[in-house]
Amino acid sequence: MTGQQIFLASKRAAVTYAPDPDSGELRPWLAPGGTGNVVAEQAGVLDVSWIASADTDDDHRAARENPEGLALSLGSGRRIRVQLLRHDRKTFEVVQNFVTAELLWAANNHGWDSWTTPTFGSETYRALECFDEFTRDFAEALLKSSADAPDPLYLVHDYQLVGVPQKLREQRPDAPILLFVHIPWPTPDYWRMLPKPMRVGLLEGMLPATTIGFFADRWCRNFLACVADLIPDAEVDRERGLIRRRGAVTRVRTLPLGYSPLTIAGRTPGLPDGIAEWAGDGPLVVHSGRTDPIKNAERAVRAFRLAVRSDARLRGTRMLVRMNPNRLYVEANADYVRRVRSAVAEVNADLGADTVRWHCDNHVEHTLGSFRRADLLVFNSTVDGQNLSAFEAPLVNERDADVVLSEMCGAAEVLGGVCRTVNPFDLAEQAEAIAGALTAPAAQRAEAAGRRRAAAEPWTLEAWVRSQLDALQADRRGGHE
Amino acid sequence: MTGQQIFLASKRAAVTYAPDPDSGELRPWLAPGGTGNVVAEQAGVLDVSWIASADTDDDHRAARENPEGLALSLGSGRRIRVQLLRHDRKTFEVVQNFVTAELLWAANNHGWDSWTTPTFGSETYRALECFDEFTRDFAEALLKSSADAPDPLYLVHDYQLVGVPQKLREQRPDAPILLFVHIPWPTPDYWRMLPKPMRVGLLEGMLPATTIGFFADRWCRNFLACVADLIPDAEVDRERGLIRRRGAVTRVRTLPLGYSPLTIAGRTPGLPDGIAEWAGDGPLVVHSGRTDPIKNAERAVRAFRLAVRSDARLRGTRMLVRMNPNRLYVEANADYVRRVRSAVAEVNADLGADTVRWHCDNHVEHTLGSFRRADLLVFNSTVDGQNLSAFEAPLVNERDADVVLSEMCGAAEVLGGVCRTVNPFDLAEQAEAIAGALTAPAAQRAEAAGRRRAAAEPWTLEAWVRSQLDALQADRRGGHE
Repeated sequence: MTGQQIFLASKRAAVTYAPDPDSGELRPWLAPGGTGNVVAEQAGVLDVSWIASADTDDDHRAARENPEGLALSLGSGRRIRVQLLRHDRKTFEVVQNFVTAELLWAANNHGWDSWTTPTFGSETYRALECFDEFTRDFAEALLKSSADAPDPLYLVHDYQLVGVPQKLREQRPDAPILLFVHIPWPTPDYWRMLPKPMRVGLLEGMLPATTIGFFADRWCRNFLACVADLIPDAEVDRERGLIRRRGAVTRVRTLPLGYSPLTIAGRTPGLPDGIAEWAGDGPLVVHSGRTDPIKNAERAVRAFRLAVRSDARLRGTRMLVRMNPNRLYVEANADYVRRVRSAVAEVNADLGADTVRWHCDNHVEHTLGSFRRADLLVFNSTVDGQNLSAFEAPLVNERDADVVLSEMCGAAEVLGGVCRTVNPFDLAEQAEAIAGALTAPAAQRAEAAGRRRAAAEPWTLEAWVRSQLDALQADRRGGHE
Repeated sequence: MTGQQIFLASKRAAVTYAPDPDSGELRPWLAPGGTGNVVAEQAGVLDVSWIASADTDDDHRAARENPEGLALSLGSGRRIRVQLLRHDRKTFEVVQNFVTAELLWAANNHGWDSWTTPTFGSETYRALECFDEFTRDFAEALLKSSADAPDPLYLVHDYQLVGVPQKLREQRPDAPILLFVHIPWPTPDYWRMLPKPMRVGLLEGMLPATTIGFFADRWCRNFLACVADLIPDAEVDRERGLIRRRGAVTRVRTLPLGYSPLTIAGRTPGLPDGIAEWAGDGPLVVHSGRTDPIKNAERAVRAFRLAVRSDARLRGTRMLVRMNPNRLYVEANADYVRRVRSAVAEVNADLGADTVRWHCDNHVEHTLGSFRRADLLVFNSTVDGQNLSAFEAPLVNERDADVVLSEMCGAAEVLGGVCRTVNPFDLAEQAEAIAGALTAPAAQRAEAAGRRRAAAEPWTLEAWVRSQLDALQADRRGGHE
């Protein structure tokens, strides 16, 4: 297999174009955040052409000036080629701000209560037309890029592009297509809440992939159950993760990713101003995640309070709530930040001023610095496709920090045995886990930390990329049966 | 099988004791509402002893004065014997107002968004202790009643009593036990939101039943999936609906109920004051259901507006939102009524004063009167164990009213083919269904109404009771394999 035969697509480019403040020339900058960087690293490893959406004005200018794409260097030193797609601006806005950031995000991450939300009307249907146009842009660009390839492999990344496999298949009846979904997949009763054409249309958009990958078995099971529920002519083999439909076979597979060694090695961990002094050498609990309600910091802060109040030995323990700003234009995210800050204020009023600090910025170095300094890490997501921090943090940490991990993180399927897994809605259980971790004897903590590092270490980006390529090779051989 | 061998339990007695206004003597009154009456009718058909919780002060007094239970006549003329259980009052309050009306109601009916609700703490665990005590009261009373029966059959009704089968099994290793759950069963990811001891403990409480019945295949599938997810030593055969665990077998079965002919025959349908005059002979849409957010009247009213605005032929159509007051001490229910009333006011401001009327009382006659008068019935529940109204209304209606039915009602599995099934969250689809139904030619409406009545008719209370007894007989024979 040569690099030229692989065609990679994801909505988000891990780079964005902006003028260099010195020269004024447009240049690519690495955008912060999890998935984008991971796919960028993947593109670097594979040496492939990568197609992604232009976002900013400068992205659009760079795309206009370089219609065949641009070669550029990642921070890691690896080079990737990126072609930025210029969608209709209004279409892209609706897809980015509504269809993916609100509608699908809530559908796949359990954001609706059903009694008061969601409600769909004609504006939802209009948004779906935008989503279809956006999907078509991607499929056409992939097909154009691969027009001369006799035997292309397609790697389609994440939930924004779930409709792409079907449109590729129309032109490329035999090509292996791997669709990887980075977020959770919900159960049938939840997925069904979407309007009928959407819930069925998106599944039909996915099924022409030869392999559909998720981070965890639970999301595979849910996806298979959704197909069984909503696609009458699909034959679903839940045991083997196979779907047969109209003469084609789709394999549904768990392909876990833990961390990118380059992301960790390429940065110098450091704490934000004042945090090192504030924390001193005392016990420090760290919660870390995007400004996204699934990250569940409000309940973590409240559980921390319960823990401290339940055990006198925990008096003096501090907590850092670290956030990366993300999609703050989404009301659910803005509301989440308000709720977390208000919980922090309440707990400080109760336990003593400055017991808990909230810190929000976009520096990966600060995230890694917090991981390193922590005496206990809390990743209690309400639901989470994987949660890479649960792998990264134990590898960076230098104080034998235990990890309180939500059972609803994909990561719990790999790391559950070496973390304290909790129900993310149960404050009593989380408080007990926090207290238990902080009061464990040093030798036990050290031994557990060693086992945790050993469990996390194998799950590198390179291994994950290899598992995708292996899946594509198996697809090419038609080796499902 | 003789009546003496059957022991029936449900939390709610369909009767409540109160002084007769004339004589001052305590006498039983039929309490309004769906499930309670249905189980009462069942008790009448079976001629069994029925054990239920005392609720009011007068219930407690009647129970004290009649420790062995009371024989009484139903409105139908059938006689039942009822023994009212005197739980600790505080325990009963916590179980009734919190564990069942809030916690389990939300868990089984998708009432949480996960991002902001639910949050469990030590008060949840204390409430679970009350639930265990309440469960024990029932098991002990059933065991005591059946102490002299060599070969008792146990019929345990509804979600409040899910823990009873396990406690019966401890004393009665071979008895057939049928547990019937009247409400939906959620998917594993939803059921998992409950605290670990609760989500596992309740499943373990249920599994010693020989048969577990639900109204719909979807709830059976979800229950089987919950067991597969959370009970590691259970072997789940999804195809055949069997669970093997620790040498015992539980069969999970769909046993649909449609309506009680007696409830319909025994009442004189009539409209509340002023409604007949207001509606005249013009087209009338009726939404009917308890004051419970699952009944989804707010979205029905908004869909009605969309329909009327979309089609000039619908100008002048009116809508009656009929409610039965239920558990208004639950904040979600009170909030639901506020939301519905506010939607009614908005739509009237838009379409013309008095286009939509809201009416709330406890008279079954008024419900039946609304069913009879309707030109279109809307049962668009967000989720619903069965929705008996979807069966009753077509049988009572005299104007060939079509039915817009939520696909998430259990009833949709029986009546989906003869109703307009809709996604309860999709206003555009519901508006189209409403407009399509109201503008259909008269001959087509009449023909469809005939098919609908024919589809609903077989699903009588008697047939449902028979299906339960047949299941218990099969259990006695150990005839699962």
